[in-house]
Amino acid sequence: MNSFGKIFKVTTWGESHGKAIGVVIDGVPSNIELTEDYLNRELERRNPLKYKFSTKRRESDRAIILSGVFENKTLGTPISVIVFNEDVKSEHYENLKDVFRPGHADYTYFKKFGIRDWRGGGRASARETVARVVAGAIAKKILEKYKIKIFSYTVEIAGIKAEKINLNDYEKREFFFADPDKLDEIIKFAEKIKKQGDSFGGIVEVKIENLPSGLGEPVFDKFDAVLSHAIMSIGATKGIEFGLGFNSSKILGSENNDEMDKNGFITNNSGGILGGITTGQDLIFRVAIKPIPSILKKQKSIDISGNEKLIEISGRHDVCAIPRINVVIEAMTWIVIADFILLQKRMEM
Amino acid sequence: MNSFGKIFKVTTWGESHGKAIGVVIDGVPSNIELTEDYLNRELERRNPLKYKFSTKRRESDRAIILSGVFENKTLGTPISVIVFNEDVKSEHYENLKDVFRPGHADYTYFKKFGIRDWRGGGRASARETVARVVAGAIAKKILEKYKIKIFSYTVEIAGIKAEKINLNDYEKREFFFADPDKLDEIIKFAEKIKKQGDSFGGIVEVKIENLPSGLGEPVFDKFDAVLSHAIMSIGATKGIEFGLGFNSSKILGSENNDEMDKNGFITNNSGGILGGITTGQDLIFRVAIKPIPSILKKQKSIDISGNEKLIEISGRHDVCAIPRINVVIEAMTWIVIADFILLQKRMEM
Amino acid sequence: MNSFGKIFKVTTWGESHGKAIGVVIDGVPSNIELTEDYLNRELERRNPLKYKFSTKRRESDRAIILSGVFENKTLGTPISVIVFNEDVKSEHYENLKDVFRPGHADYTYFKKFGIRDWRGGGRASARETVARVVAGAIAKKILEKYKIKIFSYTVEIAGIKAEKINLNDYEKREFFFADPDKLDEIIKFAEKIKKQGDSFGGIVEVKIENLPSGLGEPVFDKFDAVLSHAIMSIGATKGIEFGLGFNSSKILGSENNDEMDKNGFITNNSGGILGGITTGQDLIFRVAIKPIPSILKKQKSIDISGNEKLIEISGRHDVCAIPRINVVIEAMTWIVIADFILLQKRMEM
Amino acid sequence: MNSFGKIFKVTTWGESHGKAIGVVIDGVPSNIELTEDYLNRELERRNPLKYKFSTKRRESDRAIILSGVFENKTLGTPISVIVFNEDVKSEHYENLKDVFRPGHADYTYFKKFGIRDWRGGGRASARETVARVVAGAIAKKILEKYKIKIFSYTVEIAGIKAEKINLNDYEKREFFFADPDKLDEIIKFAEKIKKQGDSFGGIVEVKIENLPSGLGEPVFDKFDAVLSHAIMSIGATKGIEFGLGFNSSKILGSENNDEMDKNGFITNNSGGILGGITTGQDLIFRVAIKPIPSILKKQKSIDISGNEKLIEISGRHDVCAIPRINVVIEAMTWIVIADFILLQKRMEM
Repeated sequence: MNSFGKIFKVTTWGESHGKAIGVVIDGVPSNIELTEDYLNRELERRNPLKYKFSTKRRESDRAIILSGVFENKTLGTPISVIVFNEDVKSEHYENLKDVFRPGHADYTYFKKFGIRDWRGGGRASARETVARVVAGAIAKKILEKYKIKIFSYTVEIAGIKAEKINLNDYEKREFFFADPDKLDEIIKFAEKIKKQGDSFGGIVEVKIENLPSGLGEPVFDKFDAVLSHAIMSIGATKGIEFGLGFNSSKILGSENNDEMDKNGFITNNSGGILGGITTGQDLIFRVAIKPIPSILKKQKSIDISGNEKLIEISGRHDVCAIPRINVVIEAMTWIVIADFILLQKRMEM
Repeated sequence: MNSFGKIFKVTTWGESHGKAIGVVIDGVPSNIELTEDYLNRELERRNPLKYKFSTKRRESDRAIILSGVFENKTLGTPISVIVFNEDVKSEHYENLKDVFRPGHADYTYFKKFGIRDWRGGGRASARETVARVVAGAIAKKILEKYKIKIFSYTVEIAGIKAEKINLNDYEKREFFFADPDKLDEIIKFAEKIKKQGDSFGGIVEVKIENLPSGLGEPVFDKFDAVLSHAIMSIGATKGIEFGLGFNSSKILGSENNDEMDKNGFITNNSGGILGGITTGQDLIFRVAIKPIPSILKKQKSIDISGNEKLIEISGRHDVCAIPRINVVIEAMTWIVIADFILLQKRMEM
Repeated sequence: MNSFGKIFKVTTWGESHGKAIGVVIDGVPSNIELTEDYLNRELERRNPLKYKFSTKRRESDRAIILSGVFENKTLGTPISVIVFNEDVKSEHYENLKDVFRPGHADYTYFKKFGIRDWRGGGRASARETVARVVAGAIAKKILEKYKIKIFSYTVEIAGIKAEKINLNDYEKREFFFADPDKLDEIIKFAEKIKKQGDSFGGIVEVKIENLPSGLGEPVFDKFDAVLSHAIMSIGATKGIEFGLGFNSSKILGSENNDEMDKNGFITNNSGGILGGITTGQDLIFRVAIKPIPSILKKQKSIDISGNEKLIEISGRHDVCAIPRINVVIEAMTWIVIADFILLQKRMEM
Repeated sequence: MNSFGKIFKVTTWGESHGKAIGVVIDGVPSNIELTEDYLNRELERRNPLKYKFSTKRRESDRAIILSGVFENKTLGTPISVIVFNEDVKSEHYENLKDVFRPGHADYTYFKKFGIRDWRGGGRASARETVARVVAGAIAKKILEKYKIKIFSYTVEIAGIKAEKINLNDYEKREFFFADPDKLDEIIKFAEKIKKQGDSFGGIVEVKIENLPSGLGEPVFDKFDAVLSHAIMSIGATKGIEFGLGFNSSKILGSENNDEMDKNGFITNNSGGILGGITTGQDLIFRVAIKPIPSILKKQKSIDISGNEKLIEISGRHDVCAIPRINVVIEAMTWIVIADFILLQKRMEM
């Protein structure tokens, strides 16, 4: 339940304000170079302090490799990585411990388990994605020779759409936004919402270049099905679509089909997947990100005894999960690709 | 790879024009009534002959239970069900055996396996969903006492949107369309496209009533993540969204959060899932269905040697996967629910 | 629960007197030659009619490939194989339907499931092994190029031990007994016991030649651990040991350790496994087979209401599970090897 | 590969001389009391310093719970437990880093992975069992209400057999030996062998009382098959047998069958399992433990370049894995029982 993958198998653990967050990755091939420095460079991309509109929880987040690596090479044994939780301010949550915060998993965890760690969202916190970013970095590392590139950029913020896609150094832009000409408008909007103590979401698009054809399995483990599983398992996601996605439902078969000539596919409406298996074209998908539920405005809710409560959240305020979530989406994509590539090795009998 | 589920475990097998299609379901509790008649009534809902705009392949499709049931009761052992393939006209595919049909899995299967059963789409055919419908019917049966209801209706056809949702006997309407007042417009459109030899898709919405709260697992196996996996594993799907879905990315946190009062949730923007776990509200999701790729128009493609070919498909023509795909979506939803309910049993220690 | 294997994944289904017995094998590499004739030749080795002291149930047992093979080549899709049940004489079991036969699974299935198919042992019947032999034959086929050889012979019958091991054409000998000089003694014993309506077991030894080194996974999925799982899942087995096995517990470390020189290992006390991973030497293990529980003598038991009953089984009488069980042991061994070899492919990044 | 269990899912990680050893347990029901003190009391039973003939590596071994527990109650989320490695003397292994120690996994790990952590046996070290003992303790805890008792005692040491079984305070006896009257003889023998720098093994018997009937799954996941998998995955095991075990192969069916009367089973030759499912009687199995391979005597071996080497191991010397391995066998048994009991919950629909 807390594991993902068939061969490249990722298991994460940890609550937001517990001692640590961690991940165990099993099935990693041996003799691949891996250092803590590399992991920490990857982890730094998720650091909220880097991003103006992200939470100010200081997650200095140093990944420590506890096993599976020897003299900077993978051993083929499980790689255990731990990141200690720092700057934990559980007192901010003390007055909310019996109340279900709207938009959060407080109510459902309580219904499921009859108990919950109310400090910082517990297991349901976005803090858990630290572990995913580490696992994604390892997946990326073992795939190095394939020259696969993943771009995880933003094409819409609170309804403001990118009109063009410019991927040069997009990670240096606020919100990893694809269209630099729209940045001013978006930042002004973000500053306004931040002052209001409110939050917003957006749409992230992912493009994968150099993905081998033939990945994915017939029927249940189609490449897009498993990727949907992976991406929709990230907290704030509310939808996913591939290629033309929902728009493909509005056009005719003759418009949607990607014809071929001797140079290969002429169009890429499918988003690089046919019958659940990669075509070798760029793989394209988009993810809907909902607004972060923690807002500073007063909200109606109830406590565990059913009494109505007016909630006012104090503490640090995260205006938008983007672009940190883009990094997590990228990480999950690496994990899915690694697993399918390792699985495909069986064909080389 | 051809299996789905952790405890209620479904394995399907079979090629479109092979001897048969089948499914093995493991993990079914014992002592539950199950008959072939019941399965066949469920299967009949998928019968293309019932639907004006579906393929005219005659799939009389009688499910035969080969194991796991004794005197009309489940034994707790694997239930194997077989449906023989009839009315197979492989000669229609003979001239296409070396060519990759646009929009189909022909190219990707060839890339992956180096071989493919070209008759009727082989393993990638929608014919495989017969097995899913059988498994879904069994899932539905074992959940009877929960009084869960699933409605799988159409809210958009080729861009024509339902303006209201009327679920009285919606299965009797063409395309299971939610808005009876739009039916005339849609049927006229469908007849036109059929004459053109073209195809179209739409958007299916699913509503689940009486779903228990607390289903779904933290982190990777969130209810919506696993359901996305299940639904996106169906052939023609190109996207999925829960609750407000992509629209939640356009509004503010204060607008999107579902507040609570003593009567429970006041709104249902989340679609009945928080933190990946069901709230107990109606669960709502929508699925994008692409146009069926088999059209009668000429299309450019290549053969396995890379030569350009102009393809003209003859044979039976399926104008739209809806409403047969609605039945399959419903079946996969039952399977996911059954698996999560069985998994949740572990909490009752 | 009715599946085995991680990549080469075998799922069996079927009750002894149900319509059929079958198996689905997922994860088989594509483009490997496979015919029904080949499967039936392998299945014939398990045919009880060939063996003097086996049951006289006529299992003509023709395997029919229903999917996953096209023009005699594997497609990479699941291979479904069915064997219809013939010569089913359920009336022999009619008077036993409420009684728990000693040594059988009648009582435990009833306790577990609250229902059982009493006809011929239902799911617990050795009939299920037909499916395993088919799966083993497919595993063997895909491994052909490795030149692995498996010998599954008998070293002890009802306490009568082989004094030497002669593997020339051992399958032609009664009970696949390793020592031809002991055959007369054994056959005389078997005839006596058969007349008494009683049964006996023995010890089967397996030797695997040309097994690659490096198979097996650290910790839980050691080669010997997974093989023990596979072998102990066969009905009549009561113990397994590798190399010196139980005798290694009686000697000193200095005697038990296998030293090495430039030609490799000097001895093979380990049975070809160190730390759960194959050494590349011959792999050796032994399996204890209990006497078949169905005997013609009167036995005390109870019925499902707890009343004491004196049982007298009529019908066909199987004096010894050997050598049919040797064929099943061999099949399970092929399955385990195939799975580990496919899994090891991931290292070839 | 480093995970075990279907619902109660245990993943271990760590090398002997790495920073730490750990385990993640997923699927634990919520709201069960669990403290570090409890885990450490259980872990103390494995402490080599307690046992005269065990290694003198000081493993003070304090288990730290990193996640999944809140205010001493399980959360239902993964429980991560870490034990830091102390008293690591890697310099003892420095001169052996290129040499394959006889009886160890050095050679096979090198063959499999092309790299190995030579310090203290790396992943193949018995040190890994710390993680199993922790997981077993958690399994035991969640099963408390079932009143199941597991006795894991020694019935043979280097060929010296217990003549009677006395289980009063057997854990206080050297080697957990079942027969107190044989202790003098055994201790004298052990002292002699210790002086010689040699080692020995023995046979451990396990008795489980109050095990519910109906546990275990038909066909591949029989209770005894899965338990064999679990037990044979422990480093020094070379064989396992249930009930009469290998001796059942020497008697007749009429002698081996367990008859029943109105009080239940009259005998227990089966060891409490029929058809792979527990009968509710005491479950009995025996495990063959080989002598520890690390001995102080000179041994022939080769290095990674194939050169012959005479090995002389210095450092701490463990004369016998018993009784520490008894504790590990017990732990694995708890894990298997917990998993089957949780799995059986699905029947309570």
